[in-house]
Amino acid sequence: MQIDGETKIVAILGDPIAQAKSPQLFNALFERHAVGAVLIPLHVPSLRLGAVLDGLRNIVNLAGVVVTVPHKFAAAAHAADLSDSARQTGGVNCLRREADGTWSGGMFDGTGFVRGLLACGHSVRGKSVLLVGTGGAGTAVAHALVDAGAVSIDLYDADPGSLARVEDALRSRQSTTSIRRGVASAQSTHDLIVNATPCGMRAGDPSPIDLTGAAQQAVVADLIMKPEQTPLLNAAKASGLTVHPGRHLLECSVEAMAAFLRLMA
Amino acid sequence: MQIDGETKIVAILGDPIAQAKSPQLFNALFERHAVGAVLIPLHVPSLRLGAVLDGLRNIVNLAGVVVTVPHKFAAAAHAADLSDSARQTGGVNCLRREADGTWSGGMFDGTGFVRGLLACGHSVRGKSVLLVGTGGAGTAVAHALVDAGAVSIDLYDADPGSLARVEDALRSRQSTTSIRRGVASAQSTHDLIVNATPCGMRAGDPSPIDLTGAAQQAVVADLIMKPEQTPLLNAAKASGLTVHPGRHLLECSVEAMAAFLRLMA
Repeated sequence: MQIDGETKIVAILGDPIAQAKSPQLFNALFERHAVGAVLIPLHVPSLRLGAVLDGLRNIVNLAGVVVTVPHKFAAAAHAADLSDSARQTGGVNCLRREADGTWSGGMFDGTGFVRGLLACGHSVRGKSVLLVGTGGAGTAVAHALVDAGAVSIDLYDADPGSLARVEDALRSRQSTTSIRRGVASAQSTHDLIVNATPCGMRAGDPSPIDLTGAAQQAVVADLIMKPEQTPLLNAAKASGLTVHPGRHLLECSVEAMAAFLRLMA
Repeated sequence: MQIDGETKIVAILGDPIAQAKSPQLFNALFERHAVGAVLIPLHVPSLRLGAVLDGLRNIVNLAGVVVTVPHKFAAAAHAADLSDSARQTGGVNCLRREADGTWSGGMFDGTGFVRGLLACGHSVRGKSVLLVGTGGAGTAVAHALVDAGAVSIDLYDADPGSLARVEDALRSRQSTTSIRRGVASAQSTHDLIVNATPCGMRAGDPSPIDLTGAAQQAVVADLIMKPEQTPLLNAAKASGLTVHPGRHLLECSVEAMAAFLRLMA
């Protein structure tokens, strides 16, 4: 990759940032498609997010930023415009810089997750889902599962306020998907079991979902990218279940994000 | 060059920025020395410099910024601390980010120019210099020529205020270098003839210095980097004089700037 004075800039903002895989994935994509852009990591503490975004929006050759933990909700407040997914979720994982220096927000976690499932041969239409965790990524995934035609979603979150908010938002869409309150335990009726909590990122974390009751044909997915093998996925493997690691989400959303940033068709 | 989540960031700020050669030079240096850093170009309009610097200083993994035209003087006002060269010049071409989010300013144009001359076998000690242009780079070069032991500097600038300011600053140093007011015409006594004006950057610019009276052994230097062959250097070549293009300045200052940014020893 050759950076020169005409290179367009994309940054990923997070705290911490050392674990981010976006630089490798985006820069490989830019190289494959001969896009004159580079993605760089920026370590931005939460209290500084506003100041950093106010600086970055004045940089003419900045295409936009990718937003990761813990900034997805806070960054949405800086967007002058939000995509449907971002509005549904209340969070953004991408801000495009417009020519007038304003931000347009997009959220690709949900669509990226569903694309990743489909790319691995796991269908969503007509399936019963257990989704544990209703933060930024979990909310985005829930909406994308509705869009993809899941027959039911059993939702669980340790925070009843967050859970109720997402339930209400999903029910207000008046889709055919049945939205139910679940528990953090798989049942034999679940085709797809998803962890959208951060439980599993730190060494020694327990599995966030009890898989004892899971059906043998169930697919067990984790949104966590690092470590790739989480306690949940290890437990699923030990039970002979099919596992779906978090990296597919990012791998299947980079092209859509590059298009949103107007760097690719 | 592989960018990952642990890569440190350096940016060059200018308007325009497309012509900048710093990305190629710094990134090649980082690669040669296995430094985990990348330099990216940022196009920053003058009115936005303050907002951009206030944003960038909150980014934990930003080592600092390189500052180019037209920001060298304005950026100095944002530095909590200035190096001797920066204080003498009144401008900075480098801001290092300190851990507390403040900037320390450095100015490497002058020392880079002198290093470039020496690297090409052109000595400065005891030499007579004609220096045309007393902006940021010209002022830095004048101080560095004094430091390097030039016997005399004839100064010229179309702006009498700028000229008087630099004359006063150089004389106040009480060095052995004779500081005189010159004209934009070479005399046979000049060993080194330097253009530090922007004249020559645009197509059709005339030569900023009349070389008719120059001695045959004179070295004619231009600080302009693009085009590499300026009207002044073309005129010097046509008269059989030795030429010294602007790229040597940058090539001979990148290592010192990387050290200032604490990216290299």
